[in-house]
Amino acid sequence: MSKLRVLCFSISIDGYGAGPNQDLNNPLGVGGLALHEWFFGTKTFKKMHNENNDDGVTGIDDDFAARGFKNIGAWILGRNMFGPVRGPWRDGKWQGWWGPNPPYHVPVFVLTHHPRPPIEMEGGTTFYFVTDGIKSALKRATEAAKGKDIRLGGGVSLVREYLKAGLIHEMHFAISPVLLGTGEHLLQGIDLVKLGYHCTEHVPSAKATHVVFCK
Amino acid sequence: MSKLRVLCFSISIDGYGAGPNQDLNNPLGVGGLALHEWFFGTKTFKKMHNENNDDGVTGIDDDFAARGFKNIGAWILGRNMFGPVRGPWRDGKWQGWWGPNPPYHVPVFVLTHHPRPPIEMEGGTTFYFVTDGIKSALKRATEAAKGKDIRLGGGVSLVREYLKAGLIHEMHFAISPVLLGTGEHLLQGIDLVKLGYHCTEHVPSAKATHVVFCK
Repeated sequence: MSKLRVLCFSISIDGYGAGPNQDLNNPLGVGGLALHEWFFGTKTFKKMHNENNDDGVTGIDDDFAARGFKNIGAWILGRNMFGPVRGPWRDGKWQGWWGPNPPYHVPVFVLTHHPRPPIEMEGGTTFYFVTDGIKSALKRATEAAKGKDIRLGGGVSLVREYLKAGLIHEMHFAISPVLLGTGEHLLQGIDLVKLGYHCTEHVPSAKATHVVFCK
Repeated sequence: MSKLRVLCFSISIDGYGAGPNQDLNNPLGVGGLALHEWFFGTKTFKKMHNENNDDGVTGIDDDFAARGFKNIGAWILGRNMFGPVRGPWRDGKWQGWWGPNPPYHVPVFVLTHHPRPPIEMEGGTTFYFVTDGIKSALKRATEAAKGKDIRLGGGVSLVREYLKAGLIHEMHFAISPVLLGTGEHLLQGIDLVKLGYHCTEHVPSAKATHVVFCK
């Protein structure tokens, strides 16, 4: 059975998954990039952007980064993870943050209030725009994943919605040694114990503390 | 100059410093004991309870545990850290959770709304009860510490009060791989970045992630 999984989700020590004021220059909000320092140096990250790049570090961080792409048959993203455009799509020129060949290589379902035809990109990624809610997106992603798992990429508010609906099977957080102070808090007001989660893995590296929660 | 320091303060992955419903059987709230697993195995903890005990593990966790007692000339505690009694002190029989020889060995200032004469214990610990607020407690602890530092032991609500007042110089948190889901949240609604803190140390162990914040 396909599982809905949150993987490689970076949060700050004070619990924020993104900084405030996301825009074109700050896709992860102001200060948000620092959350992902553990990821940027990995072999997996380097290869994401250039298949022939053999740089990057292996080890704990890379192991978790690589797991984030294994057995994933579809992704679900919130609209703000797809881009900084708000409201209607205007000229439809925005095709995501990632250039012509995005690092997904599978169908990606983008939750939005504004309909838009699918966009077929290079490398196997197709963006589908879903306007009828999180359950519909999960249903469509499950069909598209053909038995593989679905990765919920974020952002914070979408993870919170799926959490409250009890639909997430597994979550891997990378807690980075930074403070954001403000921004989008991942767990505020959400009781993970009541939702049935417990910690199944705790693997610290020099750059982040990796924790996995399952139901 | 004496510094006010929070040391060895354990929090859960979801940011709670204590579980809910503290009482005589659950001094740290329900589920709260699990936050301190990293501490209970250390040489420092074993020696706290029996000077002749040479058991216990050394390493990262013990290093932080030992730092928690170095150069400390006085402690400040919230009333709930001193005991489960609420309201007036009644017969005055309660003398803390720790038996006749508490592990402080210096003056300890307990914040309370209810006056009570000091209690001199074995081993150098004297409990003083302060009824006129956190600044007064800090002033008296600073005098008593004679140039050494003051350790703010907690609980959560007292740390939050001192944080908001901008009076804490250094905080060491041990993030334990447990979820509490509910209880006393340490940082909710508090912006550590705005208060001037940044991360100065990040040392993960197998049992906890140790992070230090300074102004």
